[in-house]
Amino acid sequence: MSNSDGQVLSVDEIHALVVDVLASNGCDAENASAIADTVASAERDGCLSHGLFRVPGYVKSLRCGAVDGKARPTLTRPAPSVLRADVNLGFSPLALAMTRPELIEVARRQGIAALALVRGHHFAALWPETEALAEAGLAAMAFTASRAAVAPAGARRRFFGTNPMAFAFPRGDRPPLVFDQASAAMARGEIQIAARDGHTVPPGMGIDLDGEPTTDPKAILDGAQLPFGGYKGSAIALMVELLAAGLIGEAFGYEAHENANPASGVQQSGELIIAMDPACFGDAAGWLVHTEAFFARLTALDGVRLPADRRRRTREVTLREGVRVAPALFAEIRGLL
Amino acid sequence: MSNSDGQVLSVDEIHALVVDVLASNGCDAENASAIADTVASAERDGCLSHGLFRVPGYVKSLRCGAVDGKARPTLTRPAPSVLRADVNLGFSPLALAMTRPELIEVARRQGIAALALVRGHHFAALWPETEALAEAGLAAMAFTASRAAVAPAGARRRFFGTNPMAFAFPRGDRPPLVFDQASAAMARGEIQIAARDGHTVPPGMGIDLDGEPTTDPKAILDGAQLPFGGYKGSAIALMVELLAAGLIGEAFGYEAHENANPASGVQQSGELIIAMDPACFGDAAGWLVHTEAFFARLTALDGVRLPADRRRRTREVTLREGVRVAPALFAEIRGLL
Repeated sequence: MSNSDGQVLSVDEIHALVVDVLASNGCDAENASAIADTVASAERDGCLSHGLFRVPGYVKSLRCGAVDGKARPTLTRPAPSVLRADVNLGFSPLALAMTRPELIEVARRQGIAALALVRGHHFAALWPETEALAEAGLAAMAFTASRAAVAPAGARRRFFGTNPMAFAFPRGDRPPLVFDQASAAMARGEIQIAARDGHTVPPGMGIDLDGEPTTDPKAILDGAQLPFGGYKGSAIALMVELLAAGLIGEAFGYEAHENANPASGVQQSGELIIAMDPACFGDAAGWLVHTEAFFARLTALDGVRLPADRRRRTREVTLREGVRVAPALFAEIRGLL
Repeated sequence: MSNSDGQVLSVDEIHALVVDVLASNGCDAENASAIADTVASAERDGCLSHGLFRVPGYVKSLRCGAVDGKARPTLTRPAPSVLRADVNLGFSPLALAMTRPELIEVARRQGIAALALVRGHHFAALWPETEALAEAGLAAMAFTASRAAVAPAGARRRFFGTNPMAFAFPRGDRPPLVFDQASAAMARGEIQIAARDGHTVPPGMGIDLDGEPTTDPKAILDGAQLPFGGYKGSAIALMVELLAAGLIGEAFGYEAHENANPASGVQQSGELIIAMDPACFGDAAGWLVHTEAFFARLTALDGVRLPADRRRRTREVTLREGVRVAPALFAEIRGLL
C-alpha cells in the first residue's frame, strides 16, 4: 500500500526487504537476518535513526569491502564469568545473537557475567541486546564506544564517541524496563537526520570546528557534539570508553576515528555487556514483587513515563498498522537491491 | 595550631579525633576506625560534605540507638561470582573493608564479581570503595540508593534517592581514574551546606514543595532535588534504584524515606559493587599501555581535567599542611567527646 506520505510496510515486510538488500550485497543469510532483526525492531519501535536509515551504510560498508558480510564470530571464555566474542570483522548482530544463550547460562550459574565483543561493526541501537537479556530474566548493562564525536567537558574538540549505554531490568510477565542513551546530549543519528532535513538542533547539543556553540547540525557533525549534563555526562562518556575499549582491548573513540576506513567511514568498535541474575543476589523469592511495587509507585507520579513507554506504544501501532516509510528512503533502499 | 580561620589538623589527627568521638558514643574500635578512614580521607581530599560535617550524624544515630556501633557483617556467597554482606544494622565502612579482600580475589579468579551490601548505614562517599579496588588493579563500579530526595524527570515530587554512582579504573603505578557523582544535579550534602551557610544554589538544582523551581536550598531540601542532565540523568537514577535496591533486596529511595528512623532520620540502604579484572577480558598484555595512551591524549586536550584531579591536588596539600577545620564545626565535634 502506498500514498502521498510514503509506503506502508509491515514489520515482517521491512525485515524481508532488509534481508534481500543485504543478501544481494554480500551478506550471507545468517548475517542478513540478524541485521534485519535490528533494523526491523528499530522501525517497529519508532527508532528511525537506527532503522532503514542505516541500511545504505550497511550496504556501503559491504560494497567497499570494509566489512565481511559472511563472518562468523569466534567465542572464547578467558575467565569463568567472562565471554569474549571476536566478530572477525563482520557485523555485530549475528555475534550478539549467537553468544546470547551462553551469556544467559553463565550469568544464571555465576550470578554475574560479562561479554566482551571485539573486532565487530555495530551500527544498531544497544537496547535490543539488553532487552533480550531482561526478557530472559536478567538485569543487563551494555556499553559501546564509537568513533570520536563528542568534546569532553571543558574541551573544544571531539575526543569521546557518542558512547551509548543501555540498561534493562526484568519485570516478570511485563515487558522489561529498558533505556538506551548516548552520552552525547543528542544521538548522532538525530543530528544526521536534522542535517539531512535542513533543521537546526536545540542549543547545547554541539560546537563547531572552532569550538564555538552552534545549532547548525552540519557544523556540529564537522565540529563536536557535547555530552549530556555537563561534566557528569562527560564522566559517563569516559567510563564507556574505559569499559568498551580499555578493558576489552578495542578501539577508543579517537582511535576509531583515526583508523576508520577512508572509503566507507566504517570503523570497528567494541562492546561490553554485563548480565546479572536477580535470583543470585540474595532476594530470589522477593525481588520481583518488590520491584513491581516500586514501578507501581513510580508510574503513579504525575508526569512520569518509563523510558521505553513511547517505543512500546509505537510498537503496538506498527505491529497492527505497519510502518510508513518515507518515499525517498524507500526508493533509495529499493535501489540497493 | 589554631588561628582566626579555624583549627588546622593533620589528616592523622582528624582520624584520631573521629575515632575518639565515635568510641565515646558506642562504636567499637574496628567500626570507629573504618568510619574514621572515610571521614579522614574525605577531609584529606577536600570533600567536605562527606568529612567531619557528617560526624554529628554518626553520633546522633548511635545515641538514639538507630545504628549498632558494634555490628559485625555476615558474609555469604549466593552464587560463584556474587558476594553478599549483611551489615547487621551497623555502619557500612567496616563491612566494606572486611569484604574487600574476598571481592578482589573472586574478581581476579572469575573475571567479574559483585558485592551486594544490605542492612547497612552508608553516610560516606562512594569513591573510596571503588578507588581501593582500582588500586588493586580492578575496574570498579558502585551504586547506592539513598532516601527519596530527587524528582524523576517530569515529576513534581521527590521519589528517587540522590543515588550516586562511582567508577574507578586502574592505571598501573599512577593513581586510579576515579569519579563519584550523584544522579542529582547537586550533591545533597552541598545543598545542606548552602542551607547551613545561608547561600542560594544555582537554578536547575531543585523544586519546592509545590513543584516550582527555586534556588533556596531549604525549600529544595523540603521539596525535591532535580536529576542532572534531565531525563538522561533521571534514567541513571532509576538504574541505581534497580541495582542497589531491586536487584539485591534492599530499600528503594521511597521506602528508605518512609521507613527512616523518626528520631534520627537514619535509614538503612543497599549498595552494589561490580569489580572487573582487565587481565581477564582478553587483552591482559596490552590493556595498560593502551589505556595510558588514551589518558595521555585526553589530558593533552585544552580545558580537560580528570574527575579526581582536584581531589588529588588537594590531597597533596593537606597531607603536607593539614586541614583547616571551621571553628564552629571543630567545637561541635569536640563537644561530642
